[in-house]
Amino acid sequence: MKIEMICTGEEVLSGQIVDTNAAWFANVLMDSGLELQRKTTVGDRMEDLVSIFLDRSQHADVILVNGGLGPTSDDLSAEAAAKALGVELEEDSDWLKHLENWHSKRNRKMPASNYKQCLLPQGAVLVDNPVGSAPGFRIKLNRAWLFFTPGVPVELKLMVMEQFLPFFNSEFSIGQATQLIKLVTLGHGESTLADELNVIEVPQGITLGYRPSPPHVEIKIFARGEQAISALPDYVGQVKTTLGTALVTERFPTIAEEVHTLLKNSGKTLSLAESCTGGLLSSQLVEFPGSSDYLQQSLVTYSNAAKQKVLGVKESTLGNHGAVSLETAREMATRARALLDSDFALATTGIAGPDGGSEEKPVGTVVIALSDRNTCWQQTVKLSNRSRSLVRIMSCAIAYDMLRRRLLDEEPIVDYSFITRVNADIVRL
Amino acid sequence: MKIEMICTGEEVLSGQIVDTNAAWFANVLMDSGLELQRKTTVGDRMEDLVSIFLDRSQHADVILVNGGLGPTSDDLSAEAAAKALGVELEEDSDWLKHLENWHSKRNRKMPASNYKQCLLPQGAVLVDNPVGSAPGFRIKLNRAWLFFTPGVPVELKLMVMEQFLPFFNSEFSIGQATQLIKLVTLGHGESTLADELNVIEVPQGITLGYRPSPPHVEIKIFARGEQAISALPDYVGQVKTTLGTALVTERFPTIAEEVHTLLKNSGKTLSLAESCTGGLLSSQLVEFPGSSDYLQQSLVTYSNAAKQKVLGVKESTLGNHGAVSLETAREMATRARALLDSDFALATTGIAGPDGGSEEKPVGTVVIALSDRNTCWQQTVKLSNRSRSLVRIMSCAIAYDMLRRRLLDEEPIVDYSFITRVNADIVRL
Repeated sequence: MKIEMICTGEEVLSGQIVDTNAAWFANVLMDSGLELQRKTTVGDRMEDLVSIFLDRSQHADVILVNGGLGPTSDDLSAEAAAKALGVELEEDSDWLKHLENWHSKRNRKMPASNYKQCLLPQGAVLVDNPVGSAPGFRIKLNRAWLFFTPGVPVELKLMVMEQFLPFFNSEFSIGQATQLIKLVTLGHGESTLADELNVIEVPQGITLGYRPSPPHVEIKIFARGEQAISALPDYVGQVKTTLGTALVTERFPTIAEEVHTLLKNSGKTLSLAESCTGGLLSSQLVEFPGSSDYLQQSLVTYSNAAKQKVLGVKESTLGNHGAVSLETAREMATRARALLDSDFALATTGIAGPDGGSEEKPVGTVVIALSDRNTCWQQTVKLSNRSRSLVRIMSCAIAYDMLRRRLLDEEPIVDYSFITRVNADIVRL
Repeated sequence: MKIEMICTGEEVLSGQIVDTNAAWFANVLMDSGLELQRKTTVGDRMEDLVSIFLDRSQHADVILVNGGLGPTSDDLSAEAAAKALGVELEEDSDWLKHLENWHSKRNRKMPASNYKQCLLPQGAVLVDNPVGSAPGFRIKLNRAWLFFTPGVPVELKLMVMEQFLPFFNSEFSIGQATQLIKLVTLGHGESTLADELNVIEVPQGITLGYRPSPPHVEIKIFARGEQAISALPDYVGQVKTTLGTALVTERFPTIAEEVHTLLKNSGKTLSLAESCTGGLLSSQLVEFPGSSDYLQQSLVTYSNAAKQKVLGVKESTLGNHGAVSLETAREMATRARALLDSDFALATTGIAGPDGGSEEKPVGTVVIALSDRNTCWQQTVKLSNRSRSLVRIMSCAIAYDMLRRRLLDEEPIVDYSFITRVNADIVRL
């Protein structure tokens, strides 16, 4: 079973955009126990498209083609597919109706260029696109099924998950049963984790993979075949024991979603006071529907004036200890919580860089505080040699982890081998 | 002159890492007026490597091969190149000396695994690697020069800039000059833009491309050859005139960065009051270094309680008009501005979905307000049939655009053909 991918588009080939669709698709295949054998990227030249379709369709069984389905003149995939098949393009009346309805519902006239998207190669099977104007389609060419998908990531992802994989599974008898377990860790390096886990003997048919995706390192445990699957629970148990506090979620892809779910189910409320994270802490939670159940406010007090005026942080605290200090973080958290009497509050204040660092408090120095009604936990971490963006992402993850542990009645402050803790404090209120 | 790239390595093919080397190389080529014609990614299987070398070397003039030069057993590029040539690997004594000296200078013994890196295909020309243990090399296979480079980005980049390009320029006569112009639009569909721009006659050698990257559609104007480049300014001028208010930035990839720069240069200050955007408005600005120069605070008043307590929105306003109303948005903006007497304030309140919509205010209904000291502009937009994430992203972009126009002394509220405006109001304060 040979699976290949063909990515089209000058902007991908010319590096105007980094092709994340291909990486995403390869990961999805791996999650299904399948393997991408080759990936080819070509531009928007008709002859290049036709020749690559003709060439690869003689070697692969399934080819996912991505891009070139848009309404504009440089979108040539459908026409190239027709040329490769030696057929004409013909109008798909269903899709034309669909597009016309879409526009009329919105009291708009359908732009002429959308008509182009209703033209598919004769004999092609339409593949629905519930979120975009470009339909997908599939054709049989030589030995291969070519499955054409839009370049817009959200459209590609829906089409692959809802259409490609089901078609694929029905068309080809997927070999053995497989099972994939993902464990999401925080604060430990890929190699450190590998050194620790390599001690555990891996049962036959089980493979261990690592995927760094900041702020996490994701551990993928893949089992192929009944025997491996039955050995999985015991092995995963050993892995989790070894990971200890490094494991932050096994049911969601991020700690943010884990915390969101814990909070939603707990019925508790949360307030946030953000400085260096600048709204990211709040925004990552608001991304999930239902966050309004628990999130009352996030006060992004970026300036000292705001810290005083909005949160009532004492001028003396800022003066004596600075904006990036355990004391300031504590006042930010306790005041933010008190304002609406939330059950919990998180606060962040730090130096995200690239400038603003000092000998004593270099770039990457971040203080994070968690407060409930009775206690405030604060810690200063050093996120050195990381980009401004990564400092903010890591700060959010550590803040979530403190709250997550508190919600599970664990000690909120733990060691991360990959992150230096400068100091910490626990204050009874 | 056909240039191709072959990327090797399971970790690239399987999406464990996103291949940024290829995007970087394609950009370097474009800067030299050259074009990458095809990019192929294969794993670490010997037969795949040999067959792709044999296949592409019959079509391309130059092929940059990236990766597979490391010391470990899955680094097979040199051996595969030898097999493709039908020759043996032989020791490069110069490189062996070089590595031995490198280690002895550091009082280390050279690891056995490094010896493998001294083995090159017979007849291969060594290419120096000043920063790593893997030498590059080039071979002539069929019609093509294959240029082998290490996967480590810093090593690749040095080798391409200091060795590949000079070799390339001496070996081949360089192609024509090229120039790329990018125009970033907001609020208009790709197809609508295409319909409008297709009216303008495109000078010879100039190509027009579209790239939807929410919240924007980016327009790329590519000119190849002196004649096209000299025709570029006039053509771009016509395009910009046609785009009118759709064009939101031509110097940055996003409107967020445009607004960040305008604000930073203006010396003015900004406060934010966010509900449905939930901190995204703030976070996107904080992503840029120097945002602390102007951003004073963002009050993410997610609950009505927070809107009242933190911003002082009147209970009667929320009661009579609801949280998603011109009146509430106006109070949010004017209060947020007044708190620290900022020059400007932006406010957002809406229904991001997927639930919470009503007949009167369906999911996607968002009110955005901009206030300065004298005036408050508010508008209600309908971002229908968009994901929760996209509703928030579009809301931020529209808010930025209102402020951007205000900073340029333009009318803050304009029409977007792709976005329905329900109502709007301008209030003198």
